[in-house]
Amino acid sequence: MIPENFEKQLKFITEIDRMKHILRRTLLVDGSRRENDAEHSWHIGVMAMLLREYADPAVDVERVVKMCLVHDLIEIYAGDTFAYDAGANADKAEREKASADKLYALLPPEQGSELRALWEEFDAEQTLDAQYAAAMDHLQPFIHNVMTDGHTWKEGHVTREQVYARMAIVKAATPALWPFVENAINQGIEAGIIG
Amino acid sequence: MIPENFEKQLKFITEIDRMKHILRRTLLVDGSRRENDAEHSWHIGVMAMLLREYADPAVDVERVVKMCLVHDLIEIYAGDTFAYDAGANADKAEREKASADKLYALLPPEQGSELRALWEEFDAEQTLDAQYAAAMDHLQPFIHNVMTDGHTWKEGHVTREQVYARMAIVKAATPALWPFVENAINQGIEAGIIG
Repeated sequence: MIPENFEKQLKFITEIDRMKHILRRTLLVDGSRRENDAEHSWHIGVMAMLLREYADPAVDVERVVKMCLVHDLIEIYAGDTFAYDAGANADKAEREKASADKLYALLPPEQGSELRALWEEFDAEQTLDAQYAAAMDHLQPFIHNVMTDGHTWKEGHVTREQVYARMAIVKAATPALWPFVENAINQGIEAGIIG
Repeated sequence: MIPENFEKQLKFITEIDRMKHILRRTLLVDGSRRENDAEHSWHIGVMAMLLREYADPAVDVERVVKMCLVHDLIEIYAGDTFAYDAGANADKAEREKASADKLYALLPPEQGSELRALWEEFDAEQTLDAQYAAAMDHLQPFIHNVMTDGHTWKEGHVTREQVYARMAIVKAATPALWPFVENAINQGIEAGIIG
């Protein structure tokens, strides 16, 4: 007998394969193409493992890794929202809630609630775990931008105020990494790739 | 001051972006293209979270998730080795060891050793955690094969003996999922897509 829960989990496992088709604005480090949500989620999960020495000691890194893996699943039906697109961000919460309703209903109820709670915690950015996860989520595309001559900054005509606001969570959650961020922002301003 | 460790970690973070270029034989669920190592690693990390009810209760799922994320990093310099290619598997261990030497030397020594140990544990398949991780690693492409009309089985002229040997770890680590696997193998044999 195939377990009843597994029938549902199998549907979820195949449905989330769509993450591999959801393109972000960020280019791969070599500039060859845009990256997708599955790749991004994997990358920040590994970063959370690597950079824990800069996080608050109370952060539960294993929990954050799991949070990183599921934080963008709601984009399966809601799509990726470019961080610097104010218009698209206006109805982001509503679109993502509807997507979560649809997605997590695929799973056995208890498991669906558990994964959804992990995303909601991430999204609210109120706990130390969520703040460290958010720092990884913002730092990874920042690094890719640095490596690709500011691709999304130039494409989005992004201002220094926008970048500082976007990266504030890195300063809060991993303050030792702020000099790297600040330095790179200053270089981007000097080079004219951040407005 | 940018932390000295971070200079190394940043090099590692950008180097592992290559995982997004390493193509596996497996197609995405919709058959549109081959998947890459970053996508595969993300997918099995999520599966490890989802399917823990079928694993031995002593399995440390959070550890397994981390193992899943790093288990294929050695392919960055060693390349992907098709599971059913006996020739390529003959020197796989040697190629992967050399790749690990090069890759983990990028990190601060203690952190490099820690991540390498996680890969070595995975690769040895001797602990419960490693066996559950290996079950996810073999189950995910199996599911993709089922969804894509046996793509890699047909391409590799794979026999039922090979599939049974490959999937034995699923029977051992997550026995409740074996009926699903066995059922799908039988259907593949009947349809002539497994030899």
